[in-house]
Amino acid sequence: MATKVTPISGFQEWLPADRIAELIVLDTIREVFELHGFASINTRAMETVERLAGQGEDADKEIYGVRRLAAGDDEAGDTSLGLHFDLTVPFARYVLENSGKLTFPFRRYQMQPAWRGERPQRGRYREFIQADIDIVDIGSLPDHYEAELLLVVADVFSRLPVGDYTIHVNDRKICEGFYRGLGIDDVTGTLRIVDKLDKIGADGVRQLLREAGCTEQQAAQCLALAEISTHDTGFVDRVRALGVEHELLDEGLAKLAAIIEVAGEHAPGVVVADLRSARGLDYYTGTVYETLLERDRGYGSICSGGRYDALATDGKRTFPGVGISIGVSRLLGKLITEEGLTASRETPAAVLVAVNDEASRNVSMRVAAALRARGIPTLVSPKAAKFGKQIQFADRRGIPFVWFPGTDPGASGDGAADRVGDQVKDLRSGDQVAADAASWSPPVADLRPSLVRPEQA
Amino acid sequence: MATKVTPISGFQEWLPADRIAELIVLDTIREVFELHGFASINTRAMETVERLAGQGEDADKEIYGVRRLAAGDDEAGDTSLGLHFDLTVPFARYVLENSGKLTFPFRRYQMQPAWRGERPQRGRYREFIQADIDIVDIGSLPDHYEAELLLVVADVFSRLPVGDYTIHVNDRKICEGFYRGLGIDDVTGTLRIVDKLDKIGADGVRQLLREAGCTEQQAAQCLALAEISTHDTGFVDRVRALGVEHELLDEGLAKLAAIIEVAGEHAPGVVVADLRSARGLDYYTGTVYETLLERDRGYGSICSGGRYDALATDGKRTFPGVGISIGVSRLLGKLITEEGLTASRETPAAVLVAVNDEASRNVSMRVAAALRARGIPTLVSPKAAKFGKQIQFADRRGIPFVWFPGTDPGASGDGAADRVGDQVKDLRSGDQVAADAASWSPPVADLRPSLVRPEQA
Repeated sequence: MATKVTPISGFQEWLPADRIAELIVLDTIREVFELHGFASINTRAMETVERLAGQGEDADKEIYGVRRLAAGDDEAGDTSLGLHFDLTVPFARYVLENSGKLTFPFRRYQMQPAWRGERPQRGRYREFIQADIDIVDIGSLPDHYEAELLLVVADVFSRLPVGDYTIHVNDRKICEGFYRGLGIDDVTGTLRIVDKLDKIGADGVRQLLREAGCTEQQAAQCLALAEISTHDTGFVDRVRALGVEHELLDEGLAKLAAIIEVAGEHAPGVVVADLRSARGLDYYTGTVYETLLERDRGYGSICSGGRYDALATDGKRTFPGVGISIGVSRLLGKLITEEGLTASRETPAAVLVAVNDEASRNVSMRVAAALRARGIPTLVSPKAAKFGKQIQFADRRGIPFVWFPGTDPGASGDGAADRVGDQVKDLRSGDQVAADAASWSPPVADLRPSLVRPEQA
Repeated sequence: MATKVTPISGFQEWLPADRIAELIVLDTIREVFELHGFASINTRAMETVERLAGQGEDADKEIYGVRRLAAGDDEAGDTSLGLHFDLTVPFARYVLENSGKLTFPFRRYQMQPAWRGERPQRGRYREFIQADIDIVDIGSLPDHYEAELLLVVADVFSRLPVGDYTIHVNDRKICEGFYRGLGIDDVTGTLRIVDKLDKIGADGVRQLLREAGCTEQQAAQCLALAEISTHDTGFVDRVRALGVEHELLDEGLAKLAAIIEVAGEHAPGVVVADLRSARGLDYYTGTVYETLLERDRGYGSICSGGRYDALATDGKRTFPGVGISIGVSRLLGKLITEEGLTASRETPAAVLVAVNDEASRNVSMRVAAALRARGIPTLVSPKAAKFGKQIQFADRRGIPFVWFPGTDPGASGDGAADRVGDQVKDLRSGDQVAADAASWSPPVADLRPSLVRPEQA
């Protein structure tokens, strides 16, 4: 086995305590998705390159192709495969492939890695875990799902130490209707320019809009729309006050107002109507979401999505959908890597059973089996070393309890001479008490590792 | 989005009910691994080709290389990457990369897909999930871990509907010592020939051994050793009766006898000493395990592993280890694909909350939130259709309960006219009772989907 290890950048690999923190986050997300009735699916890591390509943005450049290293020329005609770069393309393919066997509306969640061969940077990795929920139906999809997904995300984040965050919601129809009402035909081009507002400022955007053929008045109106952002349905009157009229605009305003109302009632303070938010407006067809951490808005969206009128089509039927994706790796890059969130210990074990001497290892194994049978994660000491060493073994890993199996009175051993029955020691308090493996349990808070914020660590 | 879907062979993708069955199996394995104090790690999907190559067997031919499709000539000098084909090579690399930050002996579990570009066949996939546990230490590793891993596996399988199975254990030292004691020097070559016993029978093996230079007497002795298999330590006397003497043989017999004794006490009836078992004998250095389903021994091992004296080395230190890997995809290919194991429903939802009319969707959403807050997976009906339709929606997905929110007396609606308070209906019994979302719970058995054997489905 090669001895030289060269780290590769762009991959998020955790040490055990941080991995436990990641697992707690993943388990929480999954639990909430299931509470909301989403069914899990997993898709293979690979799709045909034909299916992956042409999905817009820079995706094509970033696709990792996959090919057997030893593939001969006779395999040149084989279907060429690539690693998926999101979970939406594979989900659309899964729906088409299994449409006859699924029950619609189909609600699925999917938590898997995806891969993009991009330059690694803050919050961006070559391999990253996404946690997606989507609801798809055949032909048409009720609007209420667009508010429902927000409530699922709010439920997830209410159970995780993400700090203050805001979900920014917009509707493509508002921008498109507004631009068309102004007489602007290049909707996608205009959206792309307005999307640069944070980077280049209002003057920069105005200049680009003018260069793209807008009048001074049109450019000013586009900027005025982008500046509207309200926690309630106040945005409707502010848009109306700009005096632009279009059927699509009316439709978009009504839909977004309904979403903001439902969100305000069921998840107050989390959602904002933000008409600047342009993420993915060129491929979504209605509502779009993005989520920013208040303490670091420049970090990028940790949860994004929107509505597609045609997630997939088999030629005869279309499958409209709405979906949202939590960028788990990006979120953890912030919480764990930058802010030091971790777990309370580096092992699931709550108890270390000491070994009095190698001849009685069986006794310790029986204690461990009895504790495990009652759901208590338990380790047996690797060596019948001095008890001080065995306690140190537990302490180094953050295992809170050490169990000392009973000994014969007068048996040799470090401190064991006067023990008869089993005892358990809490390493934090130093308290040591008599205990029975058939009935003793640690406090519930010690049973599993928990998330620890840096100030507690 | 492309509309043509061409299924790709060799990948295991499940419909939702079967995926839930897979998740229950994965959750059970993880729970047991954690109860036994193994810490989770996850490694990136890719390793350098340099590290993946040269691991023996046919692995090299099966490695999937990974390269950005758009990679230009300027990237030709980049490190070349491939998808890992097992979890042992990445684990060894992880240990070397993080050895200064891990606490040894280090116990880890790892449950991830791996990829091999081999011809798909029964029980063999191009993408497959492995669930591995390993214990590694620095310099030396206590022997008792070799028995311990068997007990972890027995604990896993005791909680899953795998049917009768046997873990076959052998020790390379027994075969090596025995062959050397017979005067045979080519240990690996001899092991490879004896390994063909199941395929070509005793006469075939005898002939190959003769062709490889063995005497008739040596060949007969090799076959006699391979035929020894006992549930207890009786194998020791049977080997002794063959009259071969060698120091390594003594060592191997003593070690295997100790393992069989511990296994017999803590997991009776599961483990057999099987001196024919040759899986991996050429790369493991001590104990080897393989696990066969009694009803289909030809299906292949569903759980294999063994002891390496040097899992990894950094030049100064070596890291001896012992590990075992459950072939989850192979096991599920048997249980789900071939035998029809599935889950009791295709959604996590235990309750569907009906919607009286779209104007009162908020009421149904509040009921759902109250149930979810108490851990009950709940869906709200997609449409305020006739109750018969809403009940059908639940029934098709196997959701056991439908909740009817209260209505104003005399309100219009299908069957709602005489309801005031909330009611819940058990779709299996047809019983409908008054219920309060702040206190009602389904029976524990209905809270989550469970595994269903084919005869129950």
